[in-house]
Amino acid sequence: MTRALLHSRFRPFLEPSMPAAVTPVWYDNAEGFREGMDGAEIIWPDFTIKNSVKAAVGEAMQRANALTWCSVMSSGVDWLPLEQFKAHGVRLTNGAGLHAHSVAEFAVLGMLSLGKGWGTLLRAQDRHEWLAQPPGRGELLEAEVLVIGAGEIGQRIRTILEAFDARVTMARRTPRAGDLGNGEWRSALGRFDWVILIVPSTSETRGMFGAAELGAMKPGAGLVNVARGDVVDQDALIAALRSGQLGRAYLDVTDPEPLPADHALWSCPNVEISMHAAGLAQDSLIRRAAQRFAGNLERYVAGEPLVHEVDYARGY
Amino acid sequence: MTRALLHSRFRPFLEPSMPAAVTPVWYDNAEGFREGMDGAEIIWPDFTIKNSVKAAVGEAMQRANALTWCSVMSSGVDWLPLEQFKAHGVRLTNGAGLHAHSVAEFAVLGMLSLGKGWGTLLRAQDRHEWLAQPPGRGELLEAEVLVIGAGEIGQRIRTILEAFDARVTMARRTPRAGDLGNGEWRSALGRFDWVILIVPSTSETRGMFGAAELGAMKPGAGLVNVARGDVVDQDALIAALRSGQLGRAYLDVTDPEPLPADHALWSCPNVEISMHAAGLAQDSLIRRAAQRFAGNLERYVAGEPLVHEVDYARGY
Repeated sequence: MTRALLHSRFRPFLEPSMPAAVTPVWYDNAEGFREGMDGAEIIWPDFTIKNSVKAAVGEAMQRANALTWCSVMSSGVDWLPLEQFKAHGVRLTNGAGLHAHSVAEFAVLGMLSLGKGWGTLLRAQDRHEWLAQPPGRGELLEAEVLVIGAGEIGQRIRTILEAFDARVTMARRTPRAGDLGNGEWRSALGRFDWVILIVPSTSETRGMFGAAELGAMKPGAGLVNVARGDVVDQDALIAALRSGQLGRAYLDVTDPEPLPADHALWSCPNVEISMHAAGLAQDSLIRRAAQRFAGNLERYVAGEPLVHEVDYARGY
Repeated sequence: MTRALLHSRFRPFLEPSMPAAVTPVWYDNAEGFREGMDGAEIIWPDFTIKNSVKAAVGEAMQRANALTWCSVMSSGVDWLPLEQFKAHGVRLTNGAGLHAHSVAEFAVLGMLSLGKGWGTLLRAQDRHEWLAQPPGRGELLEAEVLVIGAGEIGQRIRTILEAFDARVTMARRTPRAGDLGNGEWRSALGRFDWVILIVPSTSETRGMFGAAELGAMKPGAGLVNVARGDVVDQDALIAALRSGQLGRAYLDVTDPEPLPADHALWSCPNVEISMHAAGLAQDSLIRRAAQRFAGNLERYVAGEPLVHEVDYARGY
C-alpha cells in the first residue's frame, strides 16, 4: 500500500478518483504534515506551510524514509530540501504553467485598460459623471507586440493577442522562425507598440530592462511586466514614465514588493499596478493543480514517467 | 467625370489613391455639404452633420439630381432619407462591422475587469495601498458564455473568448449547428457564467432582457450589454444587481444616455459603465472606414457590385 500525504484543500478533487493502491493521509497544517511524514511514499507539501517543510521532511528522511515523490503546486522550488531529495533519488514535480491562463488574462487586461482609459472611466463612474468622449482610443487591433520570454505564459499571451488581430513577435533564447534571439530584440525595440516581459528572474534577466532599453522603445509605447519586479530597473522606469518616453506601463510586479506607500511608482502617469495578484486570481487553480497531481498519481501507480518533473541540475 | 462629395477628415486616406475617373469635392461642415450636393453622383454624409443631411439631400434630389450612391460610416441608417433613396434607385452602403474590433475589445475588457476586481486594484493604487489578496478570482478560462446576437461583433467576441479557452455558445435567429435559436436561449440561461447582449435595437429586441431573464440566469453570473440600453429593462437590472442574483454587469450602454447624476445604476454593486465609448474608442476607425469606401469606389468605377449595401426592405 502506498501512503500519500496530501493537504485537505485538495481532498474534494482527489478523493473520488483515488487509485485503490494509494492510501491518502490528509493534513491541514504544519503539525499535521510533520506527523504524517512517517511512512509517506508520496508527499504534497503546501506553500502555506513553506517555512516548516524543510525541517519536517529532513527529519523524517533521517528516520525510516519511504519518500520517493514530492509534488508541489508552485513553480519555484527553492523552499524545498533539494539537496536531500537529489541525494535520495526523490522525484520532484512542480506547478509550472498552472498559473499561465490567469497571468495571461491579467497581461491582456492591463493592456486593454491602459489603451481604453478604463481607470478614467471607473473614476468618472465614482463621480456619477458621464464622459462625452472616450478617454482612450488605443487598440490591440494591429498593435505590434513583442513578448520577451516564450514559456507557457508567453505562448498563451501570444495566442490571445493574435485573436485580437494584434501582431505578435516572440523573443527567446533559442529563436524559431520569425522569433528574435537574445542578441536581436534590443535593436528591434523601436518597432513595437507594446513590450511584454515574462522571463524568469535569474542572474541573467535581473535588471535586463533599463534606461537603454526604455529609451530605445517607440516613444509613447507601452510596457507590461508580468515577470519579476527586478527584471526592470525601477528608477529608469519612473523616469521614462515621467518624461512620457514610456506612454503606458502595466506592472503586476514591482521592486520592492509590497511597494511602500511613499514610493514614486504609485502615482507615475499612465501606470497601473496589480500587486502581484496575476498568478493567484483564479478560481480554478486548486482544481487544476489537483487534476495534474491525479494524472501523475495514475502514472506513478502504473510505473510510467511523471510530467512536469524538475531537473535538479537546472533548478526548474 | 464622376463627382464624389466627401468629408475632409477622410482626405489624407483617400486622396493618394483616388481613381482618375473620380473628382472629389471635400466638405467640412453642413453648409459645405449642402453646396457640394449639386452634381454629386457619390456622397458620403458624415454623422457629425446628421441633422442637416435629410434636408440638403432632399432639396438637391428635387433639383438636377445626379446621385447614385450614398456611403456612410455608421451602422444605423435611420438619419438618412431612405424613402427618397429607394424611390430614385440610390444605392446605400454602411459601416456595419467597422466598430466590431473596438466593441469586442471593450466587452472582453469589461468581463476581465469585473472578474479580477480591477476597479478595486486601481482604487487601492490611488490610496497607495498594496492589497495582500487579489480582489477577484474570476476567470475567462473555461467560463461558459452565451453571446446573444451573432453579427460581426458577436463573432469577434466569440473568437477572442475562445482564445482565452472560454466555452462560447451563440444565440441567433437562424441557428447553425451548436447555436441556440430565438426560442431556445431563454430556457438555457441557467447554464452560463456570462451572457453578452449584442443584438440591434429593434421593436423585437427592445426590453427583451427583463426580470424573467435575469431571474433565470445562474445566481451570481455576469451580464454584458454592448447592444443598446433599451434592450435590458433597467429597473429589473438594478433590482437584480442589488439582490446579488446578478453578480456582475458591464454596461457600455444604458437607458437613458447620458445617465443622469442621480441615477441608481451608477452605484449599484459590481457594475461598470463605459458610457457608450466602446464603438468610438479606436484610433483606426477613420482609416478603416476610408479603406472600405476606397474599395467600394474601385468597384463602383469598374461597375462591380458594392459591399455592405443596405437592403431597404430590412432596414440594415
